[in-house]
Amino acid sequence: MLFRGKKLTVSVFGQSHGPAIGAVVDGLPSGFRIDQNALQAFMARRAPGQGKYATARKEGDLPEFLSGLNEQGITCGAPLCGVIRNGDTRSRDYDQFSRIPRPSHADYPAKVRYGESVDIRGGGPFSGRLTAPVCIAGGVALQMLREKGVHVGAHIASIGSQRDLRFDPVRVSEEDLEAIAQNGFPTISPEMGEEMLAEIENARKAGDSVGGTVEAAALGLPAGIGGALFEGLESALAAACMAIPAVRGVEFGDGFFAAILKGSQHNDAYTLSGDRVVTRTNHAGGLVGGMTTGMPLILRVAFKPTPSIGMPQRTLDLETRQETELTIHGRHDPCVVPRAVPVVEAMVALVLLDELLSA
Amino acid sequence: MLFRGKKLTVSVFGQSHGPAIGAVVDGLPSGFRIDQNALQAFMARRAPGQGKYATARKEGDLPEFLSGLNEQGITCGAPLCGVIRNGDTRSRDYDQFSRIPRPSHADYPAKVRYGESVDIRGGGPFSGRLTAPVCIAGGVALQMLREKGVHVGAHIASIGSQRDLRFDPVRVSEEDLEAIAQNGFPTISPEMGEEMLAEIENARKAGDSVGGTVEAAALGLPAGIGGALFEGLESALAAACMAIPAVRGVEFGDGFFAAILKGSQHNDAYTLSGDRVVTRTNHAGGLVGGMTTGMPLILRVAFKPTPSIGMPQRTLDLETRQETELTIHGRHDPCVVPRAVPVVEAMVALVLLDELLSA
Amino acid sequence: MLFRGKKLTVSVFGQSHGPAIGAVVDGLPSGFRIDQNALQAFMARRAPGQGKYATARKEGDLPEFLSGLNEQGITCGAPLCGVIRNGDTRSRDYDQFSRIPRPSHADYPAKVRYGESVDIRGGGPFSGRLTAPVCIAGGVALQMLREKGVHVGAHIASIGSQRDLRFDPVRVSEEDLEAIAQNGFPTISPEMGEEMLAEIENARKAGDSVGGTVEAAALGLPAGIGGALFEGLESALAAACMAIPAVRGVEFGDGFFAAILKGSQHNDAYTLSGDRVVTRTNHAGGLVGGMTTGMPLILRVAFKPTPSIGMPQRTLDLETRQETELTIHGRHDPCVVPRAVPVVEAMVALVLLDELLSA
Amino acid sequence: MLFRGKKLTVSVFGQSHGPAIGAVVDGLPSGFRIDQNALQAFMARRAPGQGKYATARKEGDLPEFLSGLNEQGITCGAPLCGVIRNGDTRSRDYDQFSRIPRPSHADYPAKVRYGESVDIRGGGPFSGRLTAPVCIAGGVALQMLREKGVHVGAHIASIGSQRDLRFDPVRVSEEDLEAIAQNGFPTISPEMGEEMLAEIENARKAGDSVGGTVEAAALGLPAGIGGALFEGLESALAAACMAIPAVRGVEFGDGFFAAILKGSQHNDAYTLSGDRVVTRTNHAGGLVGGMTTGMPLILRVAFKPTPSIGMPQRTLDLETRQETELTIHGRHDPCVVPRAVPVVEAMVALVLLDELLSA
Repeated sequence: MLFRGKKLTVSVFGQSHGPAIGAVVDGLPSGFRIDQNALQAFMARRAPGQGKYATARKEGDLPEFLSGLNEQGITCGAPLCGVIRNGDTRSRDYDQFSRIPRPSHADYPAKVRYGESVDIRGGGPFSGRLTAPVCIAGGVALQMLREKGVHVGAHIASIGSQRDLRFDPVRVSEEDLEAIAQNGFPTISPEMGEEMLAEIENARKAGDSVGGTVEAAALGLPAGIGGALFEGLESALAAACMAIPAVRGVEFGDGFFAAILKGSQHNDAYTLSGDRVVTRTNHAGGLVGGMTTGMPLILRVAFKPTPSIGMPQRTLDLETRQETELTIHGRHDPCVVPRAVPVVEAMVALVLLDELLSA
Repeated sequence: MLFRGKKLTVSVFGQSHGPAIGAVVDGLPSGFRIDQNALQAFMARRAPGQGKYATARKEGDLPEFLSGLNEQGITCGAPLCGVIRNGDTRSRDYDQFSRIPRPSHADYPAKVRYGESVDIRGGGPFSGRLTAPVCIAGGVALQMLREKGVHVGAHIASIGSQRDLRFDPVRVSEEDLEAIAQNGFPTISPEMGEEMLAEIENARKAGDSVGGTVEAAALGLPAGIGGALFEGLESALAAACMAIPAVRGVEFGDGFFAAILKGSQHNDAYTLSGDRVVTRTNHAGGLVGGMTTGMPLILRVAFKPTPSIGMPQRTLDLETRQETELTIHGRHDPCVVPRAVPVVEAMVALVLLDELLSA
Repeated sequence: MLFRGKKLTVSVFGQSHGPAIGAVVDGLPSGFRIDQNALQAFMARRAPGQGKYATARKEGDLPEFLSGLNEQGITCGAPLCGVIRNGDTRSRDYDQFSRIPRPSHADYPAKVRYGESVDIRGGGPFSGRLTAPVCIAGGVALQMLREKGVHVGAHIASIGSQRDLRFDPVRVSEEDLEAIAQNGFPTISPEMGEEMLAEIENARKAGDSVGGTVEAAALGLPAGIGGALFEGLESALAAACMAIPAVRGVEFGDGFFAAILKGSQHNDAYTLSGDRVVTRTNHAGGLVGGMTTGMPLILRVAFKPTPSIGMPQRTLDLETRQETELTIHGRHDPCVVPRAVPVVEAMVALVLLDELLSA
Repeated sequence: MLFRGKKLTVSVFGQSHGPAIGAVVDGLPSGFRIDQNALQAFMARRAPGQGKYATARKEGDLPEFLSGLNEQGITCGAPLCGVIRNGDTRSRDYDQFSRIPRPSHADYPAKVRYGESVDIRGGGPFSGRLTAPVCIAGGVALQMLREKGVHVGAHIASIGSQRDLRFDPVRVSEEDLEAIAQNGFPTISPEMGEEMLAEIENARKAGDSVGGTVEAAALGLPAGIGGALFEGLESALAAACMAIPAVRGVEFGDGFFAAILKGSQHNDAYTLSGDRVVTRTNHAGGLVGGMTTGMPLILRVAFKPTPSIGMPQRTLDLETRQETELTIHGRHDPCVVPRAVPVVEAMVALVLLDELLSA
């Protein structure tokens, strides 16, 4: 499962219930000291078991680096390989799903795609767990970007019908992003965060789940990154974000809202801010013609409600070819969105670092 | 500007006001007779000058095939190269934009990216005109898909705040798609189409422009096409659609609306339809776990209002570093959405054909 | 037919007897003024009809640039597309070869690969003629390399059993390369060149053909270009050179001769030349561990005798399934090696420019 | 360090003296049971410490599969990741080489390329040890090819000036390949093998090293695999073989010898063998026009003498900028060729499986 950048390639491997998961990153510059504590802290934001809203499965998620670092822990030019051992896996829970596929899970199409030998335990390679290695690669990318003056951050923009404030697309600052990342439940408005937590808790109590959106920003990008048509930065960013399990949509700047605007409402006028060419507004989300304008890059990602719900559901027994009722036992995230925030950051960081390295 | 599929590569070249534009398609199967009339008809749907809502620039857009066909007009295994000569180009209109960039146009970032030698005439390689070669490649892909029983079609889902009906995600048929494609203004509801045309005409009269959305469907796909994480079909489709100039967002199935739903509302129950495994509902838009389910694939694409508007606008003179007022003369599309419908179809077709050829 | 570099992609298209051949080059830097006269002169070295040893078919080979240049003829960032119209094509000569394949020609495997619709006229896409677009791309690459202080040149190292001198792998100079390129028959030793010409003429008179080798050198490369294992520069160079029709082998530095040496004979000792780290000898041909050492890069390419010979040959009639005798009429190169010299230069230049652009 | 096939991607990672080395293989078909014993036996052929001619460092080289297999040890569609822990590493031996680079080793260019943080211990990522993960991937590829009726084998064609017999390019059989693979010292002629062993032993005693060549054959390939120009099978095979450390040249069929032949000597006449179209001779080594002919595919690879020799050598102290004498201690292979035989098989197998999977 390959992220194929211009300069960077990330090869993610593993199955949810296999021996280990990991990522190999090719193309990173040598001479960079990875801040292991910062990486740990970043990965912890994705790790489960941090609150009522997350799955109870315990994952250490401490990556071991098998290659790419010299004896001093500095990138040495060899591919960076980070591995996370899978611990607490209870495969027996999953035996029946190959025959009785869970609604809106990968069980059925994966079986069609890979045949009887497919590994469906815990979602196999389709599991959200595979975003952990993405966070190894993306966490390193975030550190390298920071050194280049580029800051990427994200927040929970909505859970169900509860919405957070939006990033101010002109004035959002590095400090804003920092403050959100420190937050256990990453929202701009703590009050809105409380409402969202309640929404998740309600879903959990009902044996149900709920979707939401994540909004990300990247600050400090120079103008002119990207290119025309298929070389547009939006294509690379959208592909990376759509790769996150459960994502159903991606939009930039005003996004779908731009479709109801007039040009006179949506156009961003150029002006100066000190010496810098900027735009007065930023409906474009920092991207025009597939290239950065130098303004904050803004995107939003929509997540569906996790399909694992406790309620009984109708589905099909592929063997008897009869409809049947299925109840999924075990504890599952009623909402993936909070844990998805660093994953979106990781994906955005991979794309942006790749572009900057190849510019 | 390369579409890099698994099996297909499309190399699009040209500038709006250069000698010609075109595309080279590698990886097409040999032995396929291209229906030149059908291709012509398909390209005509993208061509300008068909109504009040479109730009008055006259483009023939008859591709000449320089390679890829044998003497009988059948694909022979060599790369398919189709070229369209640029005719009526009035470059003098564009001289000033390198110095005084148009708001929300590629002028400014392109100049930063490529320097003084950038070709800004008519948008250079950033022009919507470069979607014509995409339609050559995509038009052929559509024909090849049809032979495989896969039908792709799209309609104008909204113009400004005027909305068409949506595809029925379970029952949308080949005949529905065919009927829309025959329609000069491709909507499901002709009445809604009238409202949309009025919306465009209002924008045009006001010297303004307006955005909109396109909804596409692909029918007849087998289940199990795609893969996990970065191999997910949504990533490839989103990258291709985001490559279309003016696109600001892409969503699949319920898309952003899924983010406000509960799992119990969004999950699609499996059942049988005759011998076929289907789902009772299709909130997923035919895509689960990055793979097709065999149900209609549904996606929507958001277009911003075209930035070329007749009203005077504030912008910056990059030479004097002073703000100035700019009035863009000439006739421009007040809305790109109607002409974008076949472009979306072309992009979707390229991705799907690529997947089927490499499956 | 794609050259997939790290930064550069060259999409070559065309069939020998189709309307045109050409190449699209993505990833070239903007702001470079192509010296059209120098490009013309370079392409003329590949063009046929320059002497007794070359095919009599007349090819103009003047590329028209359809995109990639601004109005001043400077690269503008858009893909560079150069096209050459096919003129004098006599397709009737080739009709029988689909049924009665010529020995050691692509006729038979191409038919198996592409089926009945394959275009076998003049070799279709397998023709040596397709090296003309390679020379468009490579000719531009050579100019860009020169601006970076890198000089690529090649000579005929042997024709049949007649051998030229070899490049001095330590002292070969830019002037040496320049002098050879000026030479109509590019050898280091003019006397050896006469012997080679006689060898070719003998083959021609006998209705036969003859093989040979080309040796190339690249000067001015910095040390440290390339990488480990699959990232090694030799892999990229070998792949590009093996892509030239009729090439049967590639070697670097001492090449196959290194296989009979002792380490004490083959190792190159480091020393200083002024401030520069150099090696006293250059058995490595400037490449160690997949990376440049900063010494002249030296490689040799072996060409088989062209399979088109005038003598009657035994082959198989694929329809009757009987052996038959085939006599190939028309005038053919008795030796492709002289015309292949600039093609080798073009291939080497594409790889080296790509590496330098992505370093 | 990526092998980028059409369908397969192999991401090799690790440094000679890092924690582990390994490979991730994307694109393998699901449902294949890997024969672990056969893989073990294949890897053992590459492993050191098997005789006088090999390095004394002890490597277990038992790969652990972290992903890609289901609970039954069958490929499940997820990327296959195999890892080998590095055991006995004595890094102190390598400290000085960063300052005093060994002649014809990667030490110097690697330092220029990656800077002071380069990991030079044991050659870092440039070490021949990194061919072990290639053999994991290639060993699996060999098994999958066998299931498709394609057999790949190789032998030591020469050590120094001692030469083995050559494969009969028309009649070489699966049994021939099998017999050679069983041989501890893989030659066609055991007598020649004795001479070669003596040549290696002589080099070892003299504190020197010696080069050699490997010849590989692939049987059972259908005709028509490959393509024109850059799509030619020779390009892919040459790139893969040149990626093996110490390789200096690759040739197909008659290779460099073809360059001294006449067309009448080199052309291979088509005829029938039972129902199959074959050629009477096979100078082409089974490859014409970049495509297979269906005859045995034959290639040869030249290896330089390993640069690690016991004799004192002149080199440069990069710090003092003075020449100095260097003596490399420790036990090193006086010849890499015997252990390289399975590596060549692995590389050829990867390319051929990739082509067959994407055909």
